[in-house]
Amino acid sequence: MLTADYYINGILQQDRIVLSKAITLIESTRKEDEAVANDVLKACLQINKQSKRIAITGAPGAGKSTFINAFGQHLITQNFTLAVLAIDPSSSASKGSILGDKTRMEDLVSNKQCYIRPSASLSHLGGVAYRTRETILLCEAFGFDYIFIETVGVGQSETAVKNMVDLMLLLLLPNAGDELQGIKRGIMEMADIIIINKSEKENDVIAKIAAAQVKHAVHLLSASEKDWSPAVLNVSSIEKTGIEELHEKINSYFIKMHTSGYLTHNRNAQDYYWFEETIQQELHYQFSTNSNVQQLKASLQEKIKNKEINAVQAARFLVTNFLEN
Amino acid sequence: MLTADYYINGILQQDRIVLSKAITLIESTRKEDEAVANDVLKACLQINKQSKRIAITGAPGAGKSTFINAFGQHLITQNFTLAVLAIDPSSSASKGSILGDKTRMEDLVSNKQCYIRPSASLSHLGGVAYRTRETILLCEAFGFDYIFIETVGVGQSETAVKNMVDLMLLLLLPNAGDELQGIKRGIMEMADIIIINKSEKENDVIAKIAAAQVKHAVHLLSASEKDWSPAVLNVSSIEKTGIEELHEKINSYFIKMHTSGYLTHNRNAQDYYWFEETIQQELHYQFSTNSNVQQLKASLQEKIKNKEINAVQAARFLVTNFLEN
Repeated sequence: MLTADYYINGILQQDRIVLSKAITLIESTRKEDEAVANDVLKACLQINKQSKRIAITGAPGAGKSTFINAFGQHLITQNFTLAVLAIDPSSSASKGSILGDKTRMEDLVSNKQCYIRPSASLSHLGGVAYRTRETILLCEAFGFDYIFIETVGVGQSETAVKNMVDLMLLLLLPNAGDELQGIKRGIMEMADIIIINKSEKENDVIAKIAAAQVKHAVHLLSASEKDWSPAVLNVSSIEKTGIEELHEKINSYFIKMHTSGYLTHNRNAQDYYWFEETIQQELHYQFSTNSNVQQLKASLQEKIKNKEINAVQAARFLVTNFLEN
Repeated sequence: MLTADYYINGILQQDRIVLSKAITLIESTRKEDEAVANDVLKACLQINKQSKRIAITGAPGAGKSTFINAFGQHLITQNFTLAVLAIDPSSSASKGSILGDKTRMEDLVSNKQCYIRPSASLSHLGGVAYRTRETILLCEAFGFDYIFIETVGVGQSETAVKNMVDLMLLLLLPNAGDELQGIKRGIMEMADIIIINKSEKENDVIAKIAAAQVKHAVHLLSASEKDWSPAVLNVSSIEKTGIEELHEKINSYFIKMHTSGYLTHNRNAQDYYWFEETIQQELHYQFSTNSNVQQLKASLQEKIKNKEINAVQAARFLVTNFLEN
């Protein structure tokens, strides 16, 4: 068994193999890994590096991987380093499909400035979510300039993801009218920058119209607490156009949010969110995996069915019993 | 202090004063009332009477009270008895406004076949909800033919209410185009019968158009598991038209749901819902009101802020500490 120091030193020395092992450790559900994992996380928290944490979201088919490939390549040529993580906690059906096809990131996979890691395939929503968040903490301690979290923007995962990143980037397609229907309004509202992807030259007119429509839709949304109205940009990941403008927009976002103090405020609020969220999950987990609870619950359900006990009363009895043992 | 037998006998003898006292007992948050309340509820569960439990929902201004007055009066002339309860857990702002104006139910308030009870004004959503449900259990044991639960159809209360009743009745206004926007799609989907209220003679054309539009909208919703497509009816609560047709429609609903076994199935599922729901609430309540937890939580939040501990790790530590003490 490897020590916490092994992992911490490896991360400090920017050893990718150790980073991968550390992520595996964090993702482990083995009880005996917990103490070391906690020590590694604690040490990483105190390493004072700060990445730009960016979520890349959009419906399936919006071209997220191709976009990440294009934008990542741009960052690499500018001497930045980046980590690409994937999360898809809401759907077990598409498990593994995200980032499964690394061929769409062909320019990134073999590059030393880029680290790609698919998500842990756990069925438990919260489980995946906080493990992805802890993976971000490790990657940040490692010192990546950018951390991308790729996610499918159709499910419940967005709230979890929003609480891990500094900036939400939403990818839409030029036929926005139809496309918008696949994206929930709530996800539009979360976006800091919206990209009309696949704005290839041959689609120029339709892509510009789409951008105008999305701008109008976004304009109707109420202003956010951080005083930022979402930018809408045309990008072609294939023809590599609009990438430079996007990078500038991201930079001005971070400068503004840093200056206003929002970046720090937001990260503190996120910590609080995960604290509260994990408390609920952990309480529920401890309760539902308790063998006494499972037995007693089954017998109480039987009594409820036979009208021998009121459901509310049974629930209170069960919880009291759990807490007293 | 009154005994459980006092309450139970009073309810069996259809003594309204005792019923009112029993509801107050159920609503009590005093620890010493709990045991008696539980005994009363248990006894009531075993009294084999069955009311038709009907939710009356709609946006503010849809004319719910006036409608209940008209429909209640119709039921009374047919020798039925009814209880009218109010619930508005989602908004503390409108607390007390529902049923506050009993003048709109002038034909019911003084009638011996009708019992009217405003909701408990508790701020805690779940708290109100399950107390309203328990009030229903008492009223059912008392032997009312109909129990109406009046609720504002704009908030989160609908899921709770749906899990208390056999039939959801939604009130809309003739200018349905605008009106539908005030009602969430989810609430439309829950409705078993939709009434275009205020279908007065002078509004005849617009009211019929509204009914047709709503029928079309409802038609687009996917079929429910209970094999019932929501009926849409024009009613004037002032001119007392459409009331008879509504009563017939309600009767055929109950006959169909009784025959198919859905009524029993649904009530069992509701019991299960309240069991699970209360477990979550109770766990959360016991945790958050624990004084050790409150102290430790505050100090952990400080540590999270100072990056001395990871939020997830802190949450786990707090829950473990709570369960071990």
